[in-house]
Amino acid sequence: MDGIATQHQKHMATALALAEESLQAGGGPFGAVIVKNNRVIGRGNNRVTLDNDPTAHAEMVAIRRACRAMNDFQLADCIIYVNCEPCPMCLAALYWAGVTAIFFAADRNDAAAIGFADNLIYQELARSPTERRIPMHQLMRTEALHGFRLWDELEDKIPY
Amino acid sequence: MDGIATQHQKHMATALALAEESLQAGGGPFGAVIVKNNRVIGRGNNRVTLDNDPTAHAEMVAIRRACRAMNDFQLADCIIYVNCEPCPMCLAALYWAGVTAIFFAADRNDAAAIGFADNLIYQELARSPTERRIPMHQLMRTEALHGFRLWDELEDKIPY
Repeated sequence: MDGIATQHQKHMATALALAEESLQAGGGPFGAVIVKNNRVIGRGNNRVTLDNDPTAHAEMVAIRRACRAMNDFQLADCIIYVNCEPCPMCLAALYWAGVTAIFFAADRNDAAAIGFADNLIYQELARSPTERRIPMHQLMRTEALHGFRLWDELEDKIPY
Repeated sequence: MDGIATQHQKHMATALALAEESLQAGGGPFGAVIVKNNRVIGRGNNRVTLDNDPTAHAEMVAIRRACRAMNDFQLADCIIYVNCEPCPMCLAALYWAGVTAIFFAADRNDAAAIGFADNLIYQELARSPTERRIPMHQLMRTEALHGFRLWDELEDKIPY
């Protein structure tokens, strides 16, 4: 096994250890680490039920901590290691953050086998808005475009 | 216009006002309110660049605040009003939170027209993991399943 493969396994082993610590501490069985230049800049474990925060998946916690450490809203040249394939929330967050690569261990079907909805939510997002379990209604689009125009015309805005 | 339609418009108008306040304050042009029994329990505006937090979309901020107010990781019987169609991160978070309905005003194409990646991320999530812009690699699945088994066997766990 070459050096780079060893590094990936080392960081994944950290994520797996975080996942096991998390479930022993009363959180969900998920852990993630974000690495830049082979140095860990953010760790996270699942805190949904501990913090009453449905957004507190391991990846989200790690992203927020890594961004705080970097003092940036982008995670350029960063890699995330997570013990399970990210759900759509976390995967989209990783796109917004701009990470370079994603390493995962278990997958959405493994998560489904222990009762998690990741796969179901992937299926829901693939449906058209009118066919989803949560009804989606559009109203006042014209009024909303006023705010979008204001943004478009702002000269000192920070795009992201 | 009947009373219920008026209520929906009233709450959406609040979300639109939050969006315009947000962009004037240096955040992105997005605002959201979460309502339970016609009462606002959580507001949010986009704070990505203000807080260096790529997860701080208006819906996510509103979800976290509403959950704190309810002392719960679920938002049963709650409706969200947001000035733009939720991106995949926020939509999946709304599934995890278990909201009852989603009202939005502008859509992903309107967001794309002012430079936001929502639509692009929807397209990426629809691709198979091997065809995405951010490379995804699976490793150490067998080792990860150990943690999942520990979770599965926990007797006092809180499913979510």
